[in-house]
Amino acid sequence: MKLNERGLLIVISGPSGVGKGTVRKALFELEGHDLVYSISMTTRAPREGEIDGEDYYFVTRDEFQERIKNDQFLEYAEFVGNYYGTPRDKVDEQLELGKEVVLEIEVQGALQVREKAPDGVFIFIAPPTKEALYRRLLRRGTENPNMIQQRMDKAEREFPLAHKYDYIVVNDEVTNAADRILAIIRAEHAKTERAIYKYKEMLEVE
Amino acid sequence: MKLNERGLLIVISGPSGVGKGTVRKALFELEGHDLVYSISMTTRAPREGEIDGEDYYFVTRDEFQERIKNDQFLEYAEFVGNYYGTPRDKVDEQLELGKEVVLEIEVQGALQVREKAPDGVFIFIAPPTKEALYRRLLRRGTENPNMIQQRMDKAEREFPLAHKYDYIVVNDEVTNAADRILAIIRAEHAKTERAIYKYKEMLEVE
Repeated sequence: MKLNERGLLIVISGPSGVGKGTVRKALFELEGHDLVYSISMTTRAPREGEIDGEDYYFVTRDEFQERIKNDQFLEYAEFVGNYYGTPRDKVDEQLELGKEVVLEIEVQGALQVREKAPDGVFIFIAPPTKEALYRRLLRRGTENPNMIQQRMDKAEREFPLAHKYDYIVVNDEVTNAADRILAIIRAEHAKTERAIYKYKEMLEVE
Repeated sequence: MKLNERGLLIVISGPSGVGKGTVRKALFELEGHDLVYSISMTTRAPREGEIDGEDYYFVTRDEFQERIKNDQFLEYAEFVGNYYGTPRDKVDEQLELGKEVVLEIEVQGALQVREKAPDGVFIFIAPPTKEALYRRLLRRGTENPNMIQQRMDKAEREFPLAHKYDYIVVNDEVTNAADRILAIIRAEHAKTERAIYKYKEMLEVE
């Protein structure tokens, strides 16, 4: 007998600079949820102080490729010679425990996840305006104008992909955006196709 | 130019005795919304102190039937010789102003509304268990055992219709149920098919 209702896979995504990470952190600080953050798997070496199973799951290149072969990633990518991916089994374990598993991920990765986990809840974080995104990228101050322009161009290509998501949450203010995501999680649990199984005996379809 | 985003039609429904009215009142007491309650139209005579356009829209039988003929009701029914209905134009006016219009209505009426307003948000209020509903009907103490049994029988017939709704909200505790409905309203506004029009220029589909 299952004690907990299965949790939801919550995919928080959107263009670079939109504030995904800040919104996700604010979300975790809110009360009244059972969220866990999905831990990525990587082939890169652990840095000083990094703990396996906490910061990342550290695996060898062979292990990672074996997992790719067995379709054990919700998404993966290679950056500068190292693999990074979201291990499907680890996510499933948490969902079965009734946790909401949060992925914070780039647009391309999110669309990969959508194919493997169509029952996930896909949230596109949008800036209030294009200008706001541009200002945010400028304010970071860590990149040269050329890089900033590249990021804006990428964002322009990603904006039209918003229609592939279930929800669009505008990051006008971080706490507003986090509140909206929590509302989405609550609403998703109340959706008839999910809730009806919880009350199957009572609400049984004729 | 429209200044406000169009509001949502929120249909709160469920079996008799489930606490629809109490949940609806608790919902209106919450902060952070722009809800209005839909005012019904009726052919019955106003009672002492009742105000036209506030308690009901009072109309003649001819007017009501003319409106039926012109498909101007989201739903209507006749009770003991009087008509009662939800006037479509009044609801639309409020929606255009950006208000969320709340209907609190029986299951049969809600299913009528669903046909006329498929973009409404249909919420089935369920008791935590059948026994809880039975106890609630008993506690009311206004009806004889025979009437209570009739209501339970009707509820049993209505439970399987829950699958025709968008959401199922269990009235375990009134404030919980009201909170969940508010979360649903917020989530519905963030749904991609609604939000994408708000940010059309930015998120424009290619």
